[in-house]
Amino acid sequence: MTRPIQLSIDVDALRHNLAVMRAHAPHARVWAVVKANAYGHGLQAAFAGFADADGLALLDVADARALRQMGWRKPLLLLEGAFDAGDLDAMAELDLESVVVAEHQARELIAAARVPARVWVKLNTGMNRLGFSPSRDASLLREIIPAICARLGAAPGWMTHFADADANQGWCVQLARFQQALPALVALCGGVSSPASLANTAATLSAPPTHADWVRPGIGLYGGSPFATQPDGRAAGDLGLRAGQIFTSRVIAVQTIAPGDAVGYGSRFRAQRASRIGVVAAGYADGYPRNAPDGTPLWVAGRIAPLAGRVSMDMITVDITDHPAADVGSPVELWGGQLPVDDVARYCDTIGYELMTRVTARVPRVIHGA
Amino acid sequence: MTRPIQLSIDVDALRHNLAVMRAHAPHARVWAVVKANAYGHGLQAAFAGFADADGLALLDVADARALRQMGWRKPLLLLEGAFDAGDLDAMAELDLESVVVAEHQARELIAAARVPARVWVKLNTGMNRLGFSPSRDASLLREIIPAICARLGAAPGWMTHFADADANQGWCVQLARFQQALPALVALCGGVSSPASLANTAATLSAPPTHADWVRPGIGLYGGSPFATQPDGRAAGDLGLRAGQIFTSRVIAVQTIAPGDAVGYGSRFRAQRASRIGVVAAGYADGYPRNAPDGTPLWVAGRIAPLAGRVSMDMITVDITDHPAADVGSPVELWGGQLPVDDVARYCDTIGYELMTRVTARVPRVIHGA
Repeated sequence: MTRPIQLSIDVDALRHNLAVMRAHAPHARVWAVVKANAYGHGLQAAFAGFADADGLALLDVADARALRQMGWRKPLLLLEGAFDAGDLDAMAELDLESVVVAEHQARELIAAARVPARVWVKLNTGMNRLGFSPSRDASLLREIIPAICARLGAAPGWMTHFADADANQGWCVQLARFQQALPALVALCGGVSSPASLANTAATLSAPPTHADWVRPGIGLYGGSPFATQPDGRAAGDLGLRAGQIFTSRVIAVQTIAPGDAVGYGSRFRAQRASRIGVVAAGYADGYPRNAPDGTPLWVAGRIAPLAGRVSMDMITVDITDHPAADVGSPVELWGGQLPVDDVARYCDTIGYELMTRVTARVPRVIHGA
Repeated sequence: MTRPIQLSIDVDALRHNLAVMRAHAPHARVWAVVKANAYGHGLQAAFAGFADADGLALLDVADARALRQMGWRKPLLLLEGAFDAGDLDAMAELDLESVVVAEHQARELIAAARVPARVWVKLNTGMNRLGFSPSRDASLLREIIPAICARLGAAPGWMTHFADADANQGWCVQLARFQQALPALVALCGGVSSPASLANTAATLSAPPTHADWVRPGIGLYGGSPFATQPDGRAAGDLGLRAGQIFTSRVIAVQTIAPGDAVGYGSRFRAQRASRIGVVAAGYADGYPRNAPDGTPLWVAGRIAPLAGRVSMDMITVDITDHPAADVGSPVELWGGQLPVDDVARYCDTIGYELMTRVTARVPRVIHGA
């Protein structure tokens, strides 16, 4: 009754991956990062798959509310803090923790009638995206940190985010800046120490000195490798991670073409031999990347076959000349357990994170293992 | 209460664009193509914006059902036909027209208990994706076309799709093949002539010989130009088309950085001077393309400013050094009325169609002018 495309979410894989990440940081607590609709896997699946996490980290108050309504009683952390001052009331109501990432947020917090149970201050140690620079913002920090402590009646946690944790030792300079800044900041809170959190998936897996009190894995929980774009970087399978999402469809038509015939828009693929071309019900409007070149792997009825011709809005075309068993109705995996998302991403000059998070709303979701 | 990102749909623009397309093909009827969730604009907006179309063309029975429930009484066409034999019952129930694109569909139709009110046969004239080749499939056509006519008690319509209509005269060879094939096909139906449909947006705008009985514009209805990737191709504004979707957000933080400082993942952008970097609440998990290079234009509080640093999952960074009025809270247009989607697409080595259709579910939609 519908196009045969589907996104299956494997909750057992999410559970397994959380255990893998935890085993790499046995002395830290774990924020499971579920922003971006749980990296495209959906909050419902994340709620089930990450039941053993110590807390969930996300962006949006509306998502936090949904998780509380599902019954999540453990900590919830808003990674970018309040988007407007009204968010602070909701944080208090829903018992959320919040990061403070910018001066205006700090000032709103200090002046607010209601404040979150716990606050984390984000330090910018080199990412230059969100947070306070210990050096450039030193005088601002001397003003606001004591005021935040006074308003909360407690010291905030300390957080930073790595720009290059996936590359060799890329975390080290930022860790050093963080550790160098911390004593003065703790002193501004009367010497009260409080938790620190630095490590994303890459640092959790490869940099124990960064683990601190809470790690914050994201991509690894969903079965992607943070090292996939590095030369000789470890693949998800080598890390013991399993695919959280399996993106499938079927062959809906087969064309038999002659040498010299072109396939699809712009006639990009031109057959060198008599060829069988399978048409698959999946296109860029489903989230399959339009820039996928000829040769991008697809798993078709048990073996890998190469993309042939430009990705259309609703269809892709695959060369099944060497795969006579493939025909109308054959199952296709676009990425998932047979074909790692990172492999597809590499062909498309992107990362698995983007492919996972950009499967569009028109693709039906099915959750397994909840 | 939520991230400030939003997708606004301008129904007046959809209405206007339909009138523009119709004016280019005054003697043809118009199928407004609303597949892929109306190119990302939503069926509700399409229903309102294309009320004057002669019919709507789409992929999925579920979407056709939704449009009937909204009150659409005019023709609805399933562009890829039945995905399984059960679809034929739904087509009869919902009074849908269907394209037949492959042999198995034709055989299911001929054997079906209930059939659609009208059927179109898709001819493959060079796209080599869906449809029957008049030459290679000649004997198959001689078998199934009379059987289809007998089963329907009527002749089917004839359809094809252009692979290169956007390039200079790219439609011409395919049109010639279509016209050459038609007399023999009509003869197979006892000489009964029936409607033909060939033209997508590009052909509707630039190739009157292709207009025939029904044109099938898609991208033009939403304010995109089909010629955007051609050298000196006409832009949407030059074609009199208006943006159907306006994708906006806000600056949520500003970093002041020193010469030599890097921004974001992989430290891709490195400041050549003391710089102000605006952080915008929009990332690849919203559908903003991750491969956008430094320099990709953003409209920030009244002027164009360049992207600086790699697109993150939830944030992008923009160089606002030369724009002192831009600050936390400043409005940002990612694409839309100020910044054509085709311009952004060109920087990202893709087409506006992909950007329009891949804005993700987490972005709130607002419909104007319905």
